[in-house]
This record gives sequence, structure tokens and C-alpha cells, in this order.
Amino acid sequence: MANEFAARTSVEQVEEGAELAPKFDADGLIPAVTTHAATGELLMVGYMNAEALRRTIETGEAHYWSRSRQVLWHKGATSGLVQKVVELMIDDDQDCVWVKVDVAGSGASCHVGYRTCFYRRIPLGKGSKGLEFTEREKVFDPKVVYGDAPNPTKL
Amino acid sequence: MANEFAARTSVEQVEEGAELAPKFDADGLIPAVTTHAATGELLMVGYMNAEALRRTIETGEAHYWSRSRQVLWHKGATSGLVQKVVELMIDDDQDCVWVKVDVAGSGASCHVGYRTCFYRRIPLGKGSKGLEFTEREKVFDPKVVYGDAPNPTKL
Repeated sequence: MANEFAARTSVEQVEEGAELAPKFDADGLIPAVTTHAATGELLMVGYMNAEALRRTIETGEAHYWSRSRQVLWHKGATSGLVQKVVELMIDDDQDCVWVKVDVAGSGASCHVGYRTCFYRRIPLGKGSKGLEFTEREKVFDPKVVYGDAPNPTKL
Repeated sequence: MANEFAARTSVEQVEEGAELAPKFDADGLIPAVTTHAATGELLMVGYMNAEALRRTIETGEAHYWSRSRQVLWHKGATSGLVQKVVELMIDDDQDCVWVKVDVAGSGASCHVGYRTCFYRRIPLGKGSKGLEFTEREKVFDPKVVYGDAPNPTKL
């Protein structure tokens, strides 16, 4: 797919080179793993298209492509919880980026109101049943922050 | 898609419930973000199908679905670098898992030979050019470990 980044010409270039040559999937997206820069906690996994990646690089604030809303998404534009990028990394075959961020405001990154999207543990072992909550207290009230906006969770 | 996990019946069940009801995509896959349990470092992003997720839960060792090889992939079966799961988390809408692991052997998780797949930084700012290496020394020699196995990186 044509985009503003370097063309992917060889495995050596992609893996061992210094050119940014990201691989976007059939939908034009690359997954973005976002962690808290200070704690290493996984906050969310989103997707960027070429424009979101470019804006993230240029502005130092995380931008994503919202698959549920099908729009460029400047994270925090609604909630105020902007993610300031501390470090941006790309993986070996350049089909995933790692976004290390500081979060403004309450520090929450999850639309349900928790600090992180990952607030439940899957117990290990045979016959493992049910999820265990690792956060119980919400950091904000999503009804107050988002009002009547549709919930992005899809069944 | 029918699978061995709970059916997804409501947003409340998925977001606030204790049932494991993961959402697999059109290819039957869910992304898995794997971090080093002790350091918080992002090691890799892979994909699991229902069987890989079940085996990961049952055995406490990370299993993935290899999209390049189209096989169930017990990580470390070839390289010896098995990922022992310390904690397994799922996100709000249950379409992503977070795998916190300890890594056996040299501790490497990247087929190129680096410790993590994320060994290059994308500099921020307008006119950002080129990638900066954050790891320079390989932990192992991929030729010795993998021999003539095809490189999984796709252009």
C-alpha cells in the first residue's frame, strides 16, 4: 500500500535498517501497544493508520484510528486524558508500534472508567473458571465524561 | 464464531462480568501482548486462536497462532526460549489479552536475536527521520538457533 513512509524492499532493510517502513494491514492499519511509561503497565491496544502514525510522531501525542467509529482519533480529545508520548518504538518486522505514554488528568485510559483496560485476570490451570478483577474502583464515571456517546464495545 | 468460551451476550457481561468471553476476529484470532513480568518491557505482539488461548491457560506457557506458518505455535519449542506465564489479563471488551511472562534460557523473545522485538526507536517531532537502535548486541545468533528455517518476516 502506498503511503508516506519508506517502501519495504528487503527483510534486511526492514529488520536491521534505520528506515521507518511500517507494514499496514489490508485495512491500512498497524496495531499500537500503549503502556504507561513510568510503570510499564499495559494501558490499551489500538490501531493507527498512516495519518495517525504521522500525527503521533509529529505532535508527540498519541493518535489512533478508531475502528468502531471509523475516524482519526486524537486520544483524549473528548475525555481530556491525552496521552503524551515519552518514547515510540517499532518491532522487528515493523508491523507493530509500542507507544510509551504519560497520561494527563486522572491517568485513566479505559472508556469503562478504570485506569487500564486490563482490569481482569484470567486464572491459569486446567478447569480455570471465571475472571478475577484486579481493579475495583473506577477512576472516573464514564457517564459524566462521555454522556450519551455510543459505547465502543462491540459484541 | 462458536468456540469453547462463553458466548458474548451483552456489553455489561463483556465489560463488567467475570465470564471469559473473548472476541476472536474474522480469522479466529485475538491479539496477545506479551511483556516481561519483571521489567514491564514489551517483548512481542502475537495472535492466539481459541486453542492457543486454551493451551496457554491450561499449561501456563504461552502458545500463539503463527500467521506466517499457519500453525499452533508453542513459543520456545524450537529455540528453547519458553515463555512461562506469570499473569494473564484480558481487556475491557475482551478482544485482547496481556501475557506477562518470564523467559527461559537467554531471555530473548525476538527471532532476529535481540532480547525484545522492539529494539528501535522512532524519533518524535516534525521532519523525524530514521530509526534509532536501542539494542545493539544480539542475545543469540538466529542462524545457530533456527538454521535454515524460513524467516517469518513478510514484506
